[in-house]
Amino acid sequence: MDTRPIGVFDSGVGGLTVVKQIMKVMPHENIVYFGDTARVPYGTKSKEAVTKYSKQNVRFLLSKEVKAIIVACNTASSNSLDALRETFDVPIFGVVVPGVEEALRSTKNKKIGVIGTPGTVRSGAYERMICEQDSEMQVFTKACPLFVPLAEEGWTDNEVSRQAAKRYLEELVATGIDSLVLGCTHYPLLKRCIGQTVGEAIKLVDPAKATARRVMAFLKEHDLLNESEGVGEKQFYLSDSTDTFRFVCQKALKHPYEPEIIDIEMY
Amino acid sequence: MDTRPIGVFDSGVGGLTVVKQIMKVMPHENIVYFGDTARVPYGTKSKEAVTKYSKQNVRFLLSKEVKAIIVACNTASSNSLDALRETFDVPIFGVVVPGVEEALRSTKNKKIGVIGTPGTVRSGAYERMICEQDSEMQVFTKACPLFVPLAEEGWTDNEVSRQAAKRYLEELVATGIDSLVLGCTHYPLLKRCIGQTVGEAIKLVDPAKATARRVMAFLKEHDLLNESEGVGEKQFYLSDSTDTFRFVCQKALKHPYEPEIIDIEMY
Repeated sequence: MDTRPIGVFDSGVGGLTVVKQIMKVMPHENIVYFGDTARVPYGTKSKEAVTKYSKQNVRFLLSKEVKAIIVACNTASSNSLDALRETFDVPIFGVVVPGVEEALRSTKNKKIGVIGTPGTVRSGAYERMICEQDSEMQVFTKACPLFVPLAEEGWTDNEVSRQAAKRYLEELVATGIDSLVLGCTHYPLLKRCIGQTVGEAIKLVDPAKATARRVMAFLKEHDLLNESEGVGEKQFYLSDSTDTFRFVCQKALKHPYEPEIIDIEMY
Repeated sequence: MDTRPIGVFDSGVGGLTVVKQIMKVMPHENIVYFGDTARVPYGTKSKEAVTKYSKQNVRFLLSKEVKAIIVACNTASSNSLDALRETFDVPIFGVVVPGVEEALRSTKNKKIGVIGTPGTVRSGAYERMICEQDSEMQVFTKACPLFVPLAEEGWTDNEVSRQAAKRYLEELVATGIDSLVLGCTHYPLLKRCIGQTVGEAIKLVDPAKATARRVMAFLKEHDLLNESEGVGEKQFYLSDSTDTFRFVCQKALKHPYEPEIIDIEMY
């Protein structure tokens, strides 16, 4: 048994959808969340920039004595996970492997779609890992850079988001996929709009749920679960103040947590 | 006469539309451009973050021995110009004052619209400066955060940008404005779409042209113009590599300049 917190970082506030899933399966755990709102988004930046920022984020979380770290950001998970594991001596989990496993369970016709930021798509991480598991799989990817600012604007289901979804997803639907991975933590906020665009025949896969389950299994196996009574403590840190935190926090966690602002360039 | 370069910085690549105007009116000048592509956008970040980043950008440009600095970014001009002038001993120009002067020349009915990022609109800089010049002016502002990612996606005139423009600008048109300031360096890239949405009766004001003229007048007055023969040298620096630079550079400057990547956190 280990009462130290679980650390979670994301490029911004989208990772709160991952915190939501952790709280569901492991309510007793203490959680320290860091959102890099001063440098968001990561999805349009280079692998080098994303890796540099991710290392600073991990150093900050380690200063909070976390027992494990979840990289909630798909772009950082796709581009920087190996570099983080080589650099730091703490268990680090990404969202890509759990997302891949969930997609493999979901598909019947072996045709999987993946949408994400330009950085996630460019990395090829989803295709590589899906095909490593089953070489018969066909993977079709599409970068949807506008989905993040649409979600942050609160335009999750209006004429603009529907037109954008149509433009991004039309070709993907035509490939005959039966499962679509939401490969960015912001995309679950657009779930209804994306679902209506691709139709009911295509199942939407959210890696956050599978990630929470995977981390729980690891903690259990290594006797690191927090078995204290009561609901765990939550701490939220951002690198810049933003109105979006309040909006997404209320939407994802149904509670008005107060974030603390820190200078991430110090780490 | 002074052959030292003019320094220009922007949050990203939008400021190349300002470089274009400088090259038009002062072709002999050497120019050093810095685009903070590692931390773009500024428009959704706090005043504190924007000021901190802007100071680092000025320190970098000073290391290139510039004779004057243009803050091409409206968000930084609106939020951080005073702090920069207090900190550094070099002539520093923003884009807001020239934009205001151009808008005052343009309007006949004394009703001016201003569109910009959330950071620019929140600062109130345009309203304050317009009303300081003429207290009878009525100013109507609207933040259009999605216009930057739309321009960067290359969706400058399609169904998505038209729907977004309609949503953002409908109320502004209804106020009866006869002039609209494009208060963000990215917005001239969407000029056609914005113009069609607001109609021909509303004149679009681009602060970049007036900024270039203002800087030229200052350099002339202080005997700092570069009177060498031939076209000035251009140097482009970014804090992260990005495909967007190539696209916007070709569109704005009609020349494939090669940017150099630097670590802005060192400054």
